Amino acid sequence: MQHPAPFADVQALCFDVFGTVVDWHGSIAAEVQRLGLPVDGGAFALAWRAAYAPAMQQVRSGALPWTDIDGLHRRILDGLLAAHGIAMHEAARADLNRIWHRLQPWPDSVPGLLRLKRSFTITTLSNGNLSLLVAMAKFGGLPWDAVLSAEFFKHYKPDPEVYLGAARLLGLAPAQVALVAAHPSDLRAAAACGLRTAYVPRPLERGVGGGMEPWAEGEFDLMADSFELLAQQLEA
Amino acid sequence: MQHPAPFADVQALCFDVFGTVVDWHGSIAAEVQRLGLPVDGGAFALAWRAAYAPAMQQVRSGALPWTDIDGLHRRILDGLLAAHGIAMHEAARADLNRIWHRLQPWPDSVPGLLRLKRSFTITTLSNGNLSLLVAMAKFGGLPWDAVLSAEFFKHYKPDPEVYLGAARLLGLAPAQVALVAAHPSDLRAAAACGLRTAYVPRPLERGVGGGMEPWAEGEFDLMADSFELLAQQLEA
Repeated sequence: MQHPAPFADVQALCFDVFGTVVDWHGSIAAEVQRLGLPVDGGAFALAWRAAYAPAMQQVRSGALPWTDIDGLHRRILDGLLAAHGIAMHEAARADLNRIWHRLQPWPDSVPGLLRLKRSFTITTLSNGNLSLLVAMAKFGGLPWDAVLSAEFFKHYKPDPEVYLGAARLLGLAPAQVALVAAHPSDLRAAAACGLRTAYVPRPLERGVGGGMEPWAEGEFDLMADSFELLAQQLEA
Repeated sequence: MQHPAPFADVQALCFDVFGTVVDWHGSIAAEVQRLGLPVDGGAFALAWRAAYAPAMQQVRSGALPWTDIDGLHRRILDGLLAAHGIAMHEAARADLNRIWHRLQPWPDSVPGLLRLKRSFTITTLSNGNLSLLVAMAKFGGLPWDAVLSAEFFKHYKPDPEVYLGAARLLGLAPAQVALVAAHPSDLRAAAACGLRTAYVPRPLERGVGGGMEPWAEGEFDLMADSFELLAQQLEA
């Protein structure tokens, strides 16, 4: 099968997951509401997510030893609950933390992945730990060929070790691998390592009116509004 | 769902692959015959496989730097072709080496895995490199939830790092993980790390009359003659 020019040599598509494949904002807001916590669900989701990049930076700088995303999410959650004066016992707290294992796929994710899987090796390439990504895949029916995690490399994206490590594990040159992501910063880091890039904007990632990272027209090899439209572009 | 006693807490089944899930002997013998090489296909397969444990031992001892299974298979293949005086150009040699990516599943493997996947997380736990295991899964339709490789740990089975590393990545205690394998030695090493064990003998692994490793009655937590019968025992 012939793929369009920038993807002519691409054999594997690696997917960012949080926001690109699954709707963390909507899933967490719904869970917070279901539990009846005395906070706005959407704002709680945004605050939880906003503390994630700084937490990874603490790992990157060595201020924290290697801590997986379940661990980072839990540290942030404990802080948020304390800030809101919400008491919650351990089992409920652990279960709420695992909402990140039960995020809903966007409506096009599973049909698009099933179609792309016919022509490409499809994998995660996420900062999420393997156990989180596996639980999420079983929850949402995500048909990965392999689950690749930043955890394997003890580096978080956008560190180059993650993109280059994925290509190496897949037995491919960087230019034979594409990153599919909703985040221009992630795509730029992948491109700097020689990977191909497919931008799938998710305008509702932070909820209605939540905004998106800026990007420039033509900055990425491909752009598609859904995984199904990406499959169509790739003739997959 | 209630699983039988030794498996009551088991959440993930990790599968040995070569011989347990796929028929390396039959697949390689058929390929050698298809290529018309002037050797007995079954004997060639046995010789290729026999040199595999010593090659891993060279890595374990430090005599060889870390080399993945594709690399070890290729070293062995080059030696075998030379010993038989068979000339083969590079592309054909590389393709023959990749026969290990195209091994046929045993007839019960896919239906059994599909059934077990409903109740457990199912993963590989193989000395094969990730790219080999992913290609094999796509070739044979093996529905893994995750592909775990010794390569992640830079240790080959039966080193304990592999079994304990798999449990850690899965976010589980060793007793919540079971190894499913056709090889008593692999199962014993897993049990020594605290994993549960399911023995699925594959009497034809080395061809008709090829023999099997000895084992003692009751040595493993479960024993089943196929993945489908294992699913049945586990009420999966």
